[in-house]
Amino acid sequence: MSAPHPFDAAIALAPAGSDAFSGHSHPAYWNMIGPFGGLTAAMALNAVLQHPQLLGAPISLTVNFAGPVGEGPITARARPARTNRSTQHWWVELVQTDADGTEQVSTTATVVTAARRPTWSASDATMPTVPAPDGLPRSERGGTPVAWIARYEVRSLQGDLPRQWDGQTADDSLTRWWLRDDPPRPLDFASLTAMADVFFPRVWLRRATRVPVGTVSMTVYFHADSAQLAACGDGHLLAEARALNFRHGFFDQTGLLWNAQGHLLCSTHQIVYYKE
Amino acid sequence: MSAPHPFDAAIALAPAGSDAFSGHSHPAYWNMIGPFGGLTAAMALNAVLQHPQLLGAPISLTVNFAGPVGEGPITARARPARTNRSTQHWWVELVQTDADGTEQVSTTATVVTAARRPTWSASDATMPTVPAPDGLPRSERGGTPVAWIARYEVRSLQGDLPRQWDGQTADDSLTRWWLRDDPPRPLDFASLTAMADVFFPRVWLRRATRVPVGTVSMTVYFHADSAQLAACGDGHLLAEARALNFRHGFFDQTGLLWNAQGHLLCSTHQIVYYKE
Repeated sequence: MSAPHPFDAAIALAPAGSDAFSGHSHPAYWNMIGPFGGLTAAMALNAVLQHPQLLGAPISLTVNFAGPVGEGPITARARPARTNRSTQHWWVELVQTDADGTEQVSTTATVVTAARRPTWSASDATMPTVPAPDGLPRSERGGTPVAWIARYEVRSLQGDLPRQWDGQTADDSLTRWWLRDDPPRPLDFASLTAMADVFFPRVWLRRATRVPVGTVSMTVYFHADSAQLAACGDGHLLAEARALNFRHGFFDQTGLLWNAQGHLLCSTHQIVYYKE
Repeated sequence: MSAPHPFDAAIALAPAGSDAFSGHSHPAYWNMIGPFGGLTAAMALNAVLQHPQLLGAPISLTVNFAGPVGEGPITARARPARTNRSTQHWWVELVQTDADGTEQVSTTATVVTAARRPTWSASDATMPTVPAPDGLPRSERGGTPVAWIARYEVRSLQGDLPRQWDGQTADDSLTRWWLRDDPPRPLDFASLTAMADVFFPRVWLRRATRVPVGTVSMTVYFHADSAQLAACGDGHLLAEARALNFRHGFFDQTGLLWNAQGHLLCSTHQIVYYKE
């Protein structure tokens, strides 16, 4: 039996009583002082996906990064707040026990799942026309000291990390990348969730200055269902993000992720703390 | 003493024990079979704003419309999931007791509040150049049978309700309005939250067909602080919304609200169920 993909190992949850699961931090997705936020979001979603009472598939996820996640065991709790005929509303939290035995909530989340049915469909957000990933070089991101960066293959089209941190203010904050897991892994709701948080902070792009940052809250709206995600296999996604507004310590970012055939798989939004 | 503004009456909450408040449905903001969703969102936020442990001002709000809100008393519960030095993360729920005495959760929400400090600030989302509200006619919306519509003064710039429900598919779903409370009321976090949900369903604009719809989850990111909101007085806001994607029963909408001076006050996103 081959070893699991590091992403599956990192979001793994084992049943631990009613509405509870146990997981563990994983070095492969480590950021500077805790796990990559996208991985934490994926673990929160996974608690719902593993729950025996789950109805349907994810439609909406909001994850709030309430406090740091440390190295060690993580307890994920998920329970349905309300179950309707075709939608279900979930509370989720991730907790850790600190050195003096006190339980600390690191993450709160709400998830909506639903049974989807075919209807009239259309997209207003059209995928931009861009060169195919195979003709583009893989972006060199080896200069970074954090582990999770190496878990994503990025082929940059626009708006990559500033090459010079010279404080020269840019005019916009749009980044556009081809993106997939490294090693490649078939797409699913959990990995799409993590990819929705893959962008470096928009304030770094706008200001060419590495100010301290941290995502406060992140939302993903899922347009794809399981079959559409499975059909993506481990192919590249086109992922773009831009900021809307920066003011008094917080900016928001909005993003879109398409498969190579031009289907919008999810839209995603987040608000991020920044210093100075 | 003059009567309170109907908005203040409709979101009013009285303390009802630890972490709990009591409110009541209000006819002035009634929709077809329950309150206007923006009013419900504002009441959920108000539970945090009234809470004695509140730290700072709202940064982010996600409201999930889990089930119908009926006529009668509403209990709002809010408690801090985690309080940090300068941010605070809240759980909120609205519940009602049904005819056989069972408590039903109608609404779940998470809120992040924070102490904001002046920093480098900029906007990537620039207010479009549009005619001033005073030169535009007030939109006639008297044909509708629902009460809450009359609580907003709308001066339409683009993308108003279809005049003919003829099933002719439109090319895009952008609506742009000047907007304020009716009667006028000084802007605050609660009224801005309600205004973020004021748009009619994008699927009606795209399809010129009144299919059944219901917002499932809504997020607001607040860029303004209390002083900036207070400075808006009861002036018009420029509000715009557009859909990103419609697929298999759900579409998402993204919106922006500026004051007349061109400052972005909030961005807002929602995902909406639709039938057929």
